[in-house]
Amino acid sequence: MKIIIVGATGTMGTYLVKALENEHEVIKVASKGGDISADITSTESIENMFRQAGAFDALISTAGPTFVGPWSKLNNETFRNGVEGKMMGQINLVLIGQKYINPKGSFTLITGALTDEPQVNFANASAANGAVEGFVRAAAIELENGIRINAVSPTVIEDSPQYFPYFPGEIPTTMRQLEFMFRKSVFGKITGHIIKP
Amino acid sequence: MKIIIVGATGTMGTYLVKALENEHEVIKVASKGGDISADITSTESIENMFRQAGAFDALISTAGPTFVGPWSKLNNETFRNGVEGKMMGQINLVLIGQKYINPKGSFTLITGALTDEPQVNFANASAANGAVEGFVRAAAIELENGIRINAVSPTVIEDSPQYFPYFPGEIPTTMRQLEFMFRKSVFGKITGHIIKP
Ligand SMILES: NC(=O)c1ccc[n+]([C@@H]2O[C@H](COP(=O)([O-])OP(=O)(O)OC[C@H]3O[C@@H](n4cnc5c(N)ncnc54)[C@H](OP(=O)(O)O)[C@@H]3O)[C@@H](O)[C@H]2O)c1
Ligand SMILES: NC(=O)c1ccc[n+]([C@@H]2O[C@H](COP(=O)([O-])OP(=O)(O)OC[C@H]3O[C@@H](n4cnc5c(N)ncnc54)[C@H](OP(=O)(O)O)[C@@H]3O)[C@@H](O)[C@H]2O)c1
Repeated sequence: MKIIIVGATGTMGTYLVKALENEHEVIKVASKGGDISADITSTESIENMFRQAGAFDALISTAGPTFVGPWSKLNNETFRNGVEGKMMGQINLVLIGQKYINPKGSFTLITGALTDEPQVNFANASAANGAVEGFVRAAAIELENGIRINAVSPTVIEDSPQYFPYFPGEIPTTMRQLEFMFRKSVFGKITGHIIKP
Repeated sequence: MKIIIVGATGTMGTYLVKALENEHEVIKVASKGGDISADITSTESIENMFRQAGAFDALISTAGPTFVGPWSKLNNETFRNGVEGKMMGQINLVLIGQKYINPKGSFTLITGALTDEPQVNFANASAANGAVEGFVRAAAIELENGIRINAVSPTVIEDSPQYFPYFPGEIPTTMRQLEFMFRKSVFGKITGHIIKP
């Protein structure tokens, strides 16, 4: 399978590349580095990336910048980090990518437990996640040619211990669980699901 | 109670104004007409509206424009209808309105069943609803001075029979149910809830 991983240089992306690259053709995308550089906040950059990558079978996104910080700093400007990044960045990967993906291909986007389990400092991510999850359920009934779409929604992940203090009481998702959540979407047949650990 | 209703001239808003204005001071807001005109897609216009309205006890929003139309027309541009309208419009009502609302006041935003129950043509609304619901849950743990926030999420409403064909199998929410969902948020004590019929 030819799999594009957007966010391939990050904590999740690095793990997933290692887990998948022996058996599959993996194309690594990030804003800096990777096989192809692309900024998901720009539709032109996304379009260029897909043109360079060519037809593919699965897209995994683990790229989802948001504003993290105190509520007093949250305003129309700071909110745009999550709107342009995690939300519209990922939604545009699908709206544009559907022109390049092979029939029966799949999109798997990243959200997170913050959709339903808010934490102080992360309201922007809760909103972006909610938008992506609503979009995923809706896109699943619209996409044609057997193309599927799901979201992976982990709790704080094992390899991000620096975030643990901000997620009191949240049981971390192991990297193996994370990998298998993506596997369920890419290699299974479900569509419109929000996959949780 | 002094209650601002944004979207006061619409189907829901007209009904809610009638239901509440005998017992409460209701300030009607819409982009055209109402007591105060304001465009929720502009932060300047929102700020002006709150300055004119003065301190208040509750804000109800039934203003939530989105793009409704075929999937083939959904792209980064058309998606902005819901992003700037139903999503950021309502989120900015809260981020700005928190400076003007009285202690123990409440915000009640509008979403809809499309968050979890997608329908063809409405992916933009599903995303905007999901964003607003994620934001509501997160804002509930951040807002200070006892200020509360909830979302009302009806199915297609009784007074919008023109939408019934687009919501096959969906049992319409009666106007009385809709009114009581808003009453639960405004006059009750809950916060961070998505109120369903
Ligand atoms: N870490 C956790 O515990 C956790 C838990 C639940 C959910 N999540 C969510 O999962 C996602 C990934 O988390 P992570 O910890 O793996 O993040 P990370 O280590 O910061 O990696 C993010 C990846 O996305 C890329 N990226 C960022 N902005 C981009 C842009 N505008 N265009 C293209 N690529 C971009 C980064 O590459 P460049 O640096 O080159 O841009 C990097 O490869 C985030 O959305 C996060 O909210 C994380
Ligand atoms: N109707 C349903 O069956 C149903 C069911 C579930 C959810 N919903 C959601 O509920 C909301 C209201 O529905 P509705 O049927 O009452 O809508 P509506 O009849 O179209 O009324 C919308 C109201 O919002 C105002 N408005 C629109 N854009 C605005 C803007 N940019 N700034 C300020 N005010 C604005 C309109 O006034 P102006 O015309 O002056 O701008 C009007 O007062 C929508 O978000 C809809 O998605 C509707």
